[in-house]
Amino acid sequence: MQLFGIHAVEAALANDRRPVYAIQATENAAHKLAPLIAKRGLDPERVLPKALDRQLGADTVHQGVLLEAGRSIRRWTTTCPERFWCWIRSPIPTMGAALRSAAAFGAKGLVMTQRHSPPLGGVLAKSASGALDLVPIVQVRNLAEGLAELGERGVTRLGLAEEAEQALEDVPLSNPLALVLGAEGRGLRQLTRERCDVLCRISTASALASLNVSNAAAIALHWARVKTA
Amino acid sequence: MQLFGIHAVEAALANDRRPVYAIQATENAAHKLAPLIAKRGLDPERVLPKALDRQLGADTVHQGVLLEAGRSIRRWTTTCPERFWCWIRSPIPTMGAALRSAAAFGAKGLVMTQRHSPPLGGVLAKSASGALDLVPIVQVRNLAEGLAELGERGVTRLGLAEEAEQALEDVPLSNPLALVLGAEGRGLRQLTRERCDVLCRISTASALASLNVSNAAAIALHWARVKTA
Repeated sequence: MQLFGIHAVEAALANDRRPVYAIQATENAAHKLAPLIAKRGLDPERVLPKALDRQLGADTVHQGVLLEAGRSIRRWTTTCPERFWCWIRSPIPTMGAALRSAAAFGAKGLVMTQRHSPPLGGVLAKSASGALDLVPIVQVRNLAEGLAELGERGVTRLGLAEEAEQALEDVPLSNPLALVLGAEGRGLRQLTRERCDVLCRISTASALASLNVSNAAAIALHWARVKTA
Repeated sequence: MQLFGIHAVEAALANDRRPVYAIQATENAAHKLAPLIAKRGLDPERVLPKALDRQLGADTVHQGVLLEAGRSIRRWTTTCPERFWCWIRSPIPTMGAALRSAAAFGAKGLVMTQRHSPPLGGVLAKSASGALDLVPIVQVRNLAEGLAELGERGVTRLGLAEEAEQALEDVPLSNPLALVLGAEGRGLRQLTRERCDVLCRISTASALASLNVSNAAAIALHWARVKTA
């Protein structure tokens, strides 16, 4: 896949689980990333910004660097997280912001379904500002099955649902914990909901207004971090 | 200004402080908005989606409705809020999400500077999904002066700053309260910082990752709501 933008490429180069193959960079960008490029044994091809515009489209904010890399996805079976964070169906800008929050609050992983997830490519990496390479992503075929397995491993599965009676701030929290968020508008699917140990809502003041999914995720991650620290 | 999208137009029609002049709508959209259109005494011009594509550009998600409206901005002097929320310099998508959070958590207003703020037009209204008409926006010429005035009125001014020693969760909170957030990357300006009564940070797990501004705002608003309710 093609990764671009200084933060995204820097994080990819620093991530030992991310295979990297080739890099094109302007003199400026190559200078900024020189230690990591050397560490990875890459020989950067010097280019002018226009050459990257041509390859990525003139609207892409590449900041003078384009990295050819492989995927950095964990296998479900190799991961036994201390704190897990689950997620389904979210568009790229939201997912990028959510990845940044997951990284900031130390979530140990992010679970997505193989289908109905945004492509884990350069656009997401740029939007996540490097966080795509800080938070391990685990892809599962079926989220309900994945949640069942987490339950068997002793992970508490906390689902966020607008119509839940209990508020997030009234739920006792402890690790290991999986936060389960649904798609904006539709919320959690029935089978996902049934696999959760607790359902809760984020208390709002107005029924007229709703939170966007990445904001709901940030609030829940912050709350979980403060209450389980 | 031109407002478009079902949620944005619905909220504008429902907002008594928003002047409205004319509306173009598809049959479907006119049907959905019929009670509010009638309440406002508007006579919708029936159009086909293509006609709106031509006026707004084919990439605009207008959902079959375009409203000609005036601005809905409060004068600073007429507003003495119970809880105030301040904000400076944020791009449109972030500001839209932040407005949604402000509405959801019952913030009584949002303060922006006249300069360096995104235009309060249709793109912001669409991104805010109706919240632009739920949260009064107050524009000030000078944020430091505005904050000084809030202080004189007994409002506690809480500034969010990454480098602050105290964490948000350790600060005692009470209303009236103004949350002060800076621009992403640069944070609060020196003069803004000096006008705050308390500075605090949002505790994160990793110094490598940072929150986006709308997520930081959502976390602070939720925390303030829970702690002052």
